Amino acid sequence: MHRAVALAALGLGRTSPNPVVGCVVLDAQGEIAGEGYHQQAGGPHAEVHALRAAGDRARGGTAVVTLEPCNHTGRTGPCAQALIDAGITRVFHAVADPTDQASGGAAALRAAGIETHGGLLAEEAARGNEAWLTAMRLGRPFVLWKYASTLDGRTAAADGTSRWITGPEARADVHRLRAEVDAVLVGSGTLRADDPHLAVRHGADAGRQPLRVVADTAATVPATARVLDGTAATLIAVAPGADTGHLAAAVADGRAEIAEVPRAAAGGRGLDPHALLAALHSRGVRSVLLEGGPTLAGAFWAAGLVDKAVGYLAPALLGAGPAALLGAGIGTIAEALRLDVHDIARIGADLRLTAYPRSTAAAAPRFVNAPSTEES
Amino acid sequence: MHRAVALAALGLGRTSPNPVVGCVVLDAQGEIAGEGYHQQAGGPHAEVHALRAAGDRARGGTAVVTLEPCNHTGRTGPCAQALIDAGITRVFHAVADPTDQASGGAAALRAAGIETHGGLLAEEAARGNEAWLTAMRLGRPFVLWKYASTLDGRTAAADGTSRWITGPEARADVHRLRAEVDAVLVGSGTLRADDPHLAVRHGADAGRQPLRVVADTAATVPATARVLDGTAATLIAVAPGADTGHLAAAVADGRAEIAEVPRAAAGGRGLDPHALLAALHSRGVRSVLLEGGPTLAGAFWAAGLVDKAVGYLAPALLGAGPAALLGAGIGTIAEALRLDVHDIARIGADLRLTAYPRSTAAAAPRFVNAPSTEES
Ligand SMILES: NC(=O)c1ccc[n+]([C@@H]2O[C@H](COP(=O)([O-])OP(=O)(O)OC[C@H]3O[C@@H](n4cnc5c(N)ncnc54)[C@H](OP(=O)(O)O)[C@@H]3O)[C@@H](O)[C@H]2O)c1
Ligand SMILES: NC(=O)c1ccc[n+]([C@@H]2O[C@H](COP(=O)([O-])OP(=O)(O)OC[C@H]3O[C@@H](n4cnc5c(N)ncnc54)[C@H](OP(=O)(O)O)[C@@H]3O)[C@@H](O)[C@H]2O)c1
Repeated sequence: MHRAVALAALGLGRTSPNPVVGCVVLDAQGEIAGEGYHQQAGGPHAEVHALRAAGDRARGGTAVVTLEPCNHTGRTGPCAQALIDAGITRVFHAVADPTDQASGGAAALRAAGIETHGGLLAEEAARGNEAWLTAMRLGRPFVLWKYASTLDGRTAAADGTSRWITGPEARADVHRLRAEVDAVLVGSGTLRADDPHLAVRHGADAGRQPLRVVADTAATVPATARVLDGTAATLIAVAPGADTGHLAAAVADGRAEIAEVPRAAAGGRGLDPHALLAALHSRGVRSVLLEGGPTLAGAFWAAGLVDKAVGYLAPALLGAGPAALLGAGIGTIAEALRLDVHDIARIGADLRLTAYPRSTAAAAPRFVNAPSTEES
Repeated sequence: MHRAVALAALGLGRTSPNPVVGCVVLDAQGEIAGEGYHQQAGGPHAEVHALRAAGDRARGGTAVVTLEPCNHTGRTGPCAQALIDAGITRVFHAVADPTDQASGGAAALRAAGIETHGGLLAEEAARGNEAWLTAMRLGRPFVLWKYASTLDGRTAAADGTSRWITGPEARADVHRLRAEVDAVLVGSGTLRADDPHLAVRHGADAGRQPLRVVADTAATVPATARVLDGTAATLIAVAPGADTGHLAAAVADGRAEIAEVPRAAAGGRGLDPHALLAALHSRGVRSVLLEGGPTLAGAFWAAGLVDKAVGYLAPALLGAGPAALLGAGIGTIAEALRLDVHDIARIGADLRLTAYPRSTAAAAPRFVNAPSTEES
């Protein structure tokens, strides 16, 4: 199952709106006969890949799958049936399928006389699928907030300069995060300040790009912005009626899409974060990397819409400059947003902290607070 | 030597202006015959304790000492002579004594025909003695800056509340830091805001207390301040000519001492940090825990007077509130104060980061950047 979870992870960023799934097929002697993972939405499921690789050796064998085999005919046939047809006699799966349409796979297997066990390494497998499972549970994309700051919480110096607070390894790690999500989101403030590109730097192979999204109430993004260069799809979220005339050319040749999203309720600024996520969800986005800046992040935290946080802490001090988070709606210490630190890692000279909000529904309580580094 | 370093650490906070030293004496068969450490200034040195414990078994034996045995007659006799007199035939020491008056011990031992080796576990032993070694090298006390903040660098919420950002384990750890230094320093801002007590909470045994020091240019500390309760000695550093009349009673019954310290040079605020440290050094203080607040810490960082930093990071976010560090004199990113993270530990739900400034003379370059936690 460890191997199946590792296989599943290879699909991250390519399977939405489907989950990532990994599968290992063992022959009757218990030797690995085939491996597979769900490589992209619309393509064969993990089980089908693994059964194909195993061929005849699957007969009388065992399938180990990270998610309960599906029981529904979508763009591909039901995997439960494929396992039955291949003569598999035992199935171990980790996480039960929470969706109505796809669940029932375990029951179908049992009905066909196949020995079926759920829950094996469920925690590890659920962690690997946390974005999709959270999106299924909450009906909106999983939101991962990323920030980079100094030890005293600054994201830039007093004069606004911020290149580079963190080192090349941390910046490469952010590209890895981007490659694993369906969309990358920034506010118009970051767009104006940094003109970020937001695409994944790939090596030789061109790879899939996440959707670039800008929350830009008044459509202030200039036609020359780097996000409009066509490297990846870009969605400009604006308030109803915003003047988007200067973006017509970019829309016409497919470098941008414009989505009208309701304004935030009275008291809030900009666009309604729930509505923005709903617009992304309807486009098949199941995971969003919220890359900032501090104002947009504050609005998402205030709305309880952050599911996970990754902070890159540079071992540096500035003593002045903008903060990593602004206006999260907290007035007094008792209201502080509390998190559970899940992992601390050194990334080059920087530290990477991974944490889950302690109290929101979106936290993944099954695996919070499991330290992956030595306590000292 | 590991054992000797551990023994030495037992003296931390009690030996100034002397170093901490640990000693293990092995008999001729290599069995441990005696152990000792320098317990307090004016008391016997580590070697003397260990030799006493070993008695006759020291003859023909080996002494393992964290610091080169001294060769000078101060309040106690020279340790080199004591080792010779006890019939020790071999000495391993870790760190050479950098002081003019005490050095020459190894040479004296060799002259007496004793096999003498320096440098054993020198890095570890030097780390254990970093405060004293730094104070010897720079002629001023070692300064350890402690701060506590949220992940977004806040030390309090928007309304000023800060109890408690960190958990009980982190606060207990601060008491441990206090117990290991000679003085604890805060600015008048922290005194006014928090009326801190700054004494070490001890269990049953009453233990030694560090000197409490307030940088208070205009002598604004009220006569009712908790630092004037007599639990520990307190030094109020004021500018020349400050009106200290309201403190006369506290001074008269020994609850406070007042030290006039020159003002900072034009452009700086408050007292001159170098002069403040010099005043402490002249009182035998070799290590200072700079407990804040952000303004005083900023002045110390700007002056290049911080030798080590310990940050307690609470896994929480506030999005508003005062920062951990203010006015360190940094305008642009290239001037950022860069540190080397030496250790990351979980302290209860909080994280403790230990770091050394990368470029100042006071950094302890021998042992920076040695991770004590697993990389992941
Ligand atoms: N170190 C890091 O991790 C990091 C990451 C990103 C950015 N930054 C820095 O952050 C700075 C920009 O800060 P910022 O706070 O202005 O940028 P921001 O958070 O990216 O943008 C804020 C803007 O987003 C728009 N917006 C739309 N919907 C919103 C909503 N629901 N809530 C809040 N805002 C919404 C608002 O403008 P409209 O209403 O006009 O649309 C708002 O002014 C830059 O200097 C950048 O370098 C740092
Ligand atoms: N979380 C933490 O780790 C932590 C630790 C401590 C404090 N705090 C918080 O910090 C806040 C107080 O902030 P603060 O910045 O006002 O406190 P501060 O740094 O303790 O005090 C600053 C004051 O110290 C005096 N001072 C004397 N010499 C100075 C020098 N060379 N440079 C700068 N200042 C010098 C100045 O006042 P005069 O010139 O009038 O003497 C200055 O206004 C409180 O809310 C407290 O709770 C947090």
